[in-house]
Amino acid sequence: MKPAIWLISMSMLSFAPAHGEPAGVPAAPNGIEFPADYGDWRVISLSHRVDNHTLRAILGNAIAVEAARKGNTNPWPDGAVLGKVVWREHEKTAWKTAIVPDQFVHAEFMFRDAKKWAGNGTGWGWARWVGGELKPYGNDAGFSQECIACHTPVKDNNWVFTTPAVFPGVPE
Amino acid sequence: MKPAIWLISMSMLSFAPAHGEPAGVPAAPNGIEFPADYGDWRVISLSHRVDNHTLRAILGNAIAVEAARKGNTNPWPDGAVLGKVVWREHEKTAWKTAIVPDQFVHAEFMFRDAKKWAGNGTGWGWARWVGGELKPYGNDAGFSQECIACHTPVKDNNWVFTTPAVFPGVPE
Repeated sequence: MKPAIWLISMSMLSFAPAHGEPAGVPAAPNGIEFPADYGDWRVISLSHRVDNHTLRAILGNAIAVEAARKGNTNPWPDGAVLGKVVWREHEKTAWKTAIVPDQFVHAEFMFRDAKKWAGNGTGWGWARWVGGELKPYGNDAGFSQECIACHTPVKDNNWVFTTPAVFPGVPE
Repeated sequence: MKPAIWLISMSMLSFAPAHGEPAGVPAAPNGIEFPADYGDWRVISLSHRVDNHTLRAILGNAIAVEAARKGNTNPWPDGAVLGKVVWREHEKTAWKTAIVPDQFVHAEFMFRDAKKWAGNGTGWGWARWVGGELKPYGNDAGFSQECIACHTPVKDNNWVFTTPAVFPGVPE
């Protein structure tokens, strides 16, 4: 095999997802990898944004959920990841006054690491993937300034909008 | 110790929760036990009932979530349990157009077992626990007729209102 063809073959191989695994999702412009296991995370809260007509599930990885259940959220511990999964709202056919998720809009995440992300002034790494194809949001690493600007009203709440919902009977 | 005092002491002991475990929650009037691990379940969908001003997270045990991700939901497989956790709605202080959970109202569950629950005509066992004290709903086993009456519009959807939300990038 000629070297050029060999290189092309190798590069094709490197982009092929392993059998049984989901196709790769590109990293965010600041290098944050898509947390492919977010579908296994538990729910911390939810919201209905009536201004932009979206419903949101706020999920957390194991560290985040443990912190949420214990009220250990200001600051959140290093390693906590919060995920906000956002869908267009939709009036349920079988129950007109129930507003439910329709198509997926985006999923956005906050990765807590006070040292690693000290440089942006928040101690959180920010990332968003858009649409069913999960396209990384932003043209360069500067995109996170948009996230931070929007979250500034909750700066004193460790930059997090979410208040964990109450789950009675669940051990801390 | 006199027998009467001894009996009282034993009965007190039998109601004391083991150290580190949550206090026991009474079973529903139809014998269904409270699923104490529901806080570990993943989210299938959510809803905002604008008629009664509540927000709802629809969770599932492992069998239910697997079925939801695969679209294997009519009927749902035996062993699937769906949980609806309901909170009063609340306008978020830091973002007035975000409606978020406030106090807990109740948690209600559907337990799929086509044979065990064939007698009520649905193949589901129904249960609800109310308020922070998780008081079982209903005075006797007949309470589930209320659940079934309300779910009758979705009889052809295996008695389930919920359509699983889309989670892109999550393996089936």
